[in-house]
Amino acid sequence: MNEFELIQQYFANLGRQRNDVVVGVGDDAAVCSVADNHQLVVTTDLLVAGVHFPDETPAHAIGYKALAVNLSDLAAMAATPAWFTMTLGLPETDKSWLQEFSRGLKELADVSGITLIGGDTTRGPLTVGIQAYGFVANGSAVLRSGARVGDHIFVTGNLGDAALGLLGEIGKLELSADEQKYFSQCLRYPIPRSQEGLALNGVASAMIDVSDGLAADLGHILEASGVGASIQQSRLPISAHYKKLVGQVGTDAVLSGGDDYELCFTVPSARIDNLQKLAADWDCGVTEIGRIESAAGLRVIDEQGGLVDMVRPGYQHFSDQ
Amino acid sequence: MNEFELIQQYFANLGRQRNDVVVGVGDDAAVCSVADNHQLVVTTDLLVAGVHFPDETPAHAIGYKALAVNLSDLAAMAATPAWFTMTLGLPETDKSWLQEFSRGLKELADVSGITLIGGDTTRGPLTVGIQAYGFVANGSAVLRSGARVGDHIFVTGNLGDAALGLLGEIGKLELSADEQKYFSQCLRYPIPRSQEGLALNGVASAMIDVSDGLAADLGHILEASGVGASIQQSRLPISAHYKKLVGQVGTDAVLSGGDDYELCFTVPSARIDNLQKLAADWDCGVTEIGRIESAAGLRVIDEQGGLVDMVRPGYQHFSDQ
Repeated sequence: MNEFELIQQYFANLGRQRNDVVVGVGDDAAVCSVADNHQLVVTTDLLVAGVHFPDETPAHAIGYKALAVNLSDLAAMAATPAWFTMTLGLPETDKSWLQEFSRGLKELADVSGITLIGGDTTRGPLTVGIQAYGFVANGSAVLRSGARVGDHIFVTGNLGDAALGLLGEIGKLELSADEQKYFSQCLRYPIPRSQEGLALNGVASAMIDVSDGLAADLGHILEASGVGASIQQSRLPISAHYKKLVGQVGTDAVLSGGDDYELCFTVPSARIDNLQKLAADWDCGVTEIGRIESAAGLRVIDEQGGLVDMVRPGYQHFSDQ
Repeated sequence: MNEFELIQQYFANLGRQRNDVVVGVGDDAAVCSVADNHQLVVTTDLLVAGVHFPDETPAHAIGYKALAVNLSDLAAMAATPAWFTMTLGLPETDKSWLQEFSRGLKELADVSGITLIGGDTTRGPLTVGIQAYGFVANGSAVLRSGARVGDHIFVTGNLGDAALGLLGEIGKLELSADEQKYFSQCLRYPIPRSQEGLALNGVASAMIDVSDGLAADLGHILEASGVGASIQQSRLPISAHYKKLVGQVGTDAVLSGGDDYELCFTVPSARIDNLQKLAADWDCGVTEIGRIESAAGLRVIDEQGGLVDMVRPGYQHFSDQ
């Protein structure tokens, strides 16, 4: 099987057919239309075997997650997903691996309404780079820089489950088979909050997705907005599974664990009613965790009103050099 | 140095400032505007160390070439370059490597008028994925599928020099120091034919860039257009440096060598005058090499009127499996 056959077999017609794709996979480049009065939103993430996922991660999960993390970035801009491109480095042509990888991609692409418009497949170490493209009405993207003093801080879903899944998979946390299954599912199959992000267009003043850990990612909002915040440790949303382990593992994974791909966003007081109406329909739930303040920095307040020390602000590549 | 500092130091404000970039590097995604009545053109290429370039290739050349090959794809669509994104896998944070890599990128970005709008930098094997974005007026992209019987086939510049450079670098061809310098320059610093590609909008009926070798890439045009072609071996453009070696190395590299990044395109007879006026200004030159015919397949005709056997139609990843 050569490169062209490989693309034809596993990646042709991947995702929903769209009228705004004039030329898709198969020419020197793709050609697409952006609707009038809309802006293009572009994001990219690179996943590397052994760095972003343990080597034994199933191909289906790798395909799913590589797309999910990019959709999560579009969600954090309140954008509507449209297309994606992919660069795939493969050590070998393993047909069952490719089959499962493309099935994982396709499942998420189908439900997200996006389509693969191009890419490049080469021999090399296993790496998956995906670029996702979406739209916003002109000027309506929700940026990190829009948080203002007094805004309420929210987060969707639960935090920390993915981090426990990873700790279990790499042998740093002992989990029962049932626990490992649950937490690995959270790690491998994060649900991009596409609908929620889109609904927050016009409601959230600032937004980010939690990929490096809440403290680090909320920190990006604070820095970009030139503000600070206090959040209540007791309000941080954790799952029933996490609660059972909290005495053993503490709450570090909630504040500093990565890979949750929930949305963290701020809402001005005047729009809290709008948010509550929206969120009534959200399966993932939403939790208010604190407020934006003028004093710079992030303060995590414990139940006694004291400050929680944060040792590790989030995963950073190259930070040990 | 952490990931954010690395991006700030080496990749902030890379390329020309553009009014159509609303949000660049630093948020969850970039936000850009596509002009009215224009379509977006998207391409991506992944370069892997040891596969696409020898491990000892200078960082400056890697940065330059990773962008050049994507600009070449935009040129082959007759598109105007606008922005690019990048996924960078780095085994370590080598400051002098990063400095040189970003300098190579920047030099080409500056002359091309494009700007870096986003990316992802992670620890991993050395891989450089670039996505380039450009525009065409609605419906004006030059595709592979537009060649018609009777069209004239052209190629810009010279073919085969890059292939000889690679053969020399990997020790499969003995070259003098001067020869190696010349051919390595062709391999490492291909000049994307951006201006020429853009000028061919409305003139070329089909176009592709020669990345896998002329025979393979012209073959893509023939297949997409449902036609065949004959080309004259004696007309294939080779450099004065190549001519000196042709007795020793033959013309395989001209037909089947990759990495030339010249444009191969077809022009209907009625537009040959237009082409000649355009091409009078082109430093790279342009050569007519053959005609489109109805019989499927590519025929290379030697000086005696016989058919040249082609053993190796072009580089393909995974083709040995």
